[in-house]
Amino acid sequence: ADPEYKQGVMDCYAWVVNYLKESGLAVSEIETGGFPSALGVYNKAGASKPTLLLYGHYDVQPVDPLEQWTSPPFEPAIRDGKVFARGAQDNKGQIFYVMAALRYILKTTGSLPINIKVLVEGEEEVGSPGLERVLEKYKEELAADFVMVVDVGIRDMKSPAVTVGTRGLVAMQVNLKGSNSDLHSGSFGGTAYNPNRALVEVLASLRDKDGRVAVEGFYDDVVELTPAERQEISSAFDKINFQEEFGIEPTGNEKGYSLAESTWVRPTMEINGMSGGYSGPGFKTVIPAESLAKISCRLVPNHDPAKIVAAIEAHVKKNCPSGVEAKFQVRQGSGAAVRARSDSKVVVSARKAYEDVTGIPCGVTLEGATIPISNTLAKAAGAEIALMG
Amino acid sequence: ADPEYKQGVMDCYAWVVNYLKESGLAVSEIETGGFPSALGVYNKAGASKPTLLLYGHYDVQPVDPLEQWTSPPFEPAIRDGKVFARGAQDNKGQIFYVMAALRYILKTTGSLPINIKVLVEGEEEVGSPGLERVLEKYKEELAADFVMVVDVGIRDMKSPAVTVGTRGLVAMQVNLKGSNSDLHSGSFGGTAYNPNRALVEVLASLRDKDGRVAVEGFYDDVVELTPAERQEISSAFDKINFQEEFGIEPTGNEKGYSLAESTWVRPTMEINGMSGGYSGPGFKTVIPAESLAKISCRLVPNHDPAKIVAAIEAHVKKNCPSGVEAKFQVRQGSGAAVRARSDSKVVVSARKAYEDVTGIPCGVTLEGATIPISNTLAKAAGAEIALMG
Repeated sequence: ADPEYKQGVMDCYAWVVNYLKESGLAVSEIETGGFPSALGVYNKAGASKPTLLLYGHYDVQPVDPLEQWTSPPFEPAIRDGKVFARGAQDNKGQIFYVMAALRYILKTTGSLPINIKVLVEGEEEVGSPGLERVLEKYKEELAADFVMVVDVGIRDMKSPAVTVGTRGLVAMQVNLKGSNSDLHSGSFGGTAYNPNRALVEVLASLRDKDGRVAVEGFYDDVVELTPAERQEISSAFDKINFQEEFGIEPTGNEKGYSLAESTWVRPTMEINGMSGGYSGPGFKTVIPAESLAKISCRLVPNHDPAKIVAAIEAHVKKNCPSGVEAKFQVRQGSGAAVRARSDSKVVVSARKAYEDVTGIPCGVTLEGATIPISNTLAKAAGAEIALMG
Repeated sequence: ADPEYKQGVMDCYAWVVNYLKESGLAVSEIETGGFPSALGVYNKAGASKPTLLLYGHYDVQPVDPLEQWTSPPFEPAIRDGKVFARGAQDNKGQIFYVMAALRYILKTTGSLPINIKVLVEGEEEVGSPGLERVLEKYKEELAADFVMVVDVGIRDMKSPAVTVGTRGLVAMQVNLKGSNSDLHSGSFGGTAYNPNRALVEVLASLRDKDGRVAVEGFYDDVVELTPAERQEISSAFDKINFQEEFGIEPTGNEKGYSLAESTWVRPTMEINGMSGGYSGPGFKTVIPAESLAKISCRLVPNHDPAKIVAAIEAHVKKNCPSGVEAKFQVRQGSGAAVRARSDSKVVVSARKAYEDVTGIPCGVTLEGATIPISNTLAKAAGAEIALMG
């Protein structure tokens, strides 16, 4: 997200390209207009064998607030048998395991039993806008029978599960502008409409008292699940001890839905960032010229990202008070939700692989988070999709 | 407010002390526990002459956002015959005019016709907590017949007016804490109660639909004015062309009150700062561990600062949702509203001075802003008070 880290991201890209080459794959560098994608190809299994496209990303989330890190984010530290570092589980960890495994097999056996393409991109955390733009152009290079997205988690090795769905994502920024400059709250408090006040009023109006999103049309296309499906989801859900892990109870969920449903199959609306005026040390009795919020929604199957964004924009503009002007910006690179059939060939194969390694029956699960490119990547590659941690 | 500027503030203090000394005043340096106050005294007019205590401050508001300045804040620039610099009109400008005038009279005539004390403090912008603490101790040094606060404005030289009242001020910070660490909005969106959501809900609940403060007891002690007083205030008020000066209409005022009343005699509640999560470039789909707001209220005569703060704290805690914890901090150095009688000796003398210089009848006016120490300073000095620009 933050352009200040551009060089670091590019250094990581160069590292990935080099690692794939040294592993014995034929590497194409895909220019996207943003951060490039690396594509490593092994096609010596021959045309009669299927092709699996593995997807991951080398970019990570911003590291701030830095003071809340126990160890420096870019210096991996091992504590309690776990690696702590930015990206350790999203997604430098998982994609590296895949790359290391392929290298090991190639170095030790000299070949792979199927054709493999490894696509490692650099803009997942900002919605994959560049890769999305060039998918059509690279359709042939990316063509595959199956796509495996290796950008999710696994509960633990005692309860293996293949992920058959994710929520989608749209993100947007709202700027509320009042006067041309900051105003003194003594001289203009009580007359100018404070953009901070407008912001809290507009944002608070996005939900009703039951925690449901109050934007007109937000739930129109959401398919309500049958009681049996609701039951199935709740039993697949791993209960988290919120109090122990996070020090809080999960009190934010929509009335009438279980934690499992709220995490996996209900759409959300979250304020990811918010600022206006002076919030540094001490006080500044100012009425700011502007305030802003960054909002994102997780989407569910059948939700059209463009339609949701349009509904929220209409709501914000309608609820913005006179004397304050609302500007609305949509982040490039939204993503629809993903659903794979539990009996598709790639899901069945992945379950069998987990069972072979762990000796434990492998289930299926869902993921509340989003890999924005998943749907369009699978479509461009002409492939069935599944996700593994 | 910002400790980063400590040395700059101390440098300014040293400059003030030196200037007062070089002007021929006897200077005491008043330790306050925070930034010190300089007191320059001229008592050669003798015990039979009255003593006037002039008050101003050498500290200024933070300068951010820096990118919105046309010229650097600490390098004065003249545009359209006006000086642009941080503090040019609050309060480095006004207090410097006073100091320069005293120096000029002393240098050219060798004496002053009355006894003068010049008190220049360094914590006005943070509520004068240090000076407030030591007022009792320096009672004798500060003793005066009249206090003139030179920390307000003047409309223009064609319509001179002495300020006979200001609003008071209380400021506070609200921190809302959710989980122990930031959470991923994909995995925990829809379950954890987002502290940003809690903040906008709590802050929006502070007002009703008519723009009135919805905190229980907030208006209890406010004395409603008579229709005649309301009329008088509205005619004294200088109409501001909001659209031209600020690019907006003043749509924030409380229903049923004029702009003049909203600016001068009605209490306010403003969100001066607000932050939570990631609001830098790009997006970070995070549920922050914490959010915060800085709030201040302008108070009117008869309003008890402590009572107002307690009422707001109770409202915030009552409206904070379960799953989020509210912490409440009050800024030291609140100030009650000021009202001087229009016929007091100091007001009458100041009006006459303006009339002598301008040749125009001098009125009285009110000020919406606050000089926190005014009331307690006048009380400690045993003096009648007025304010001039």
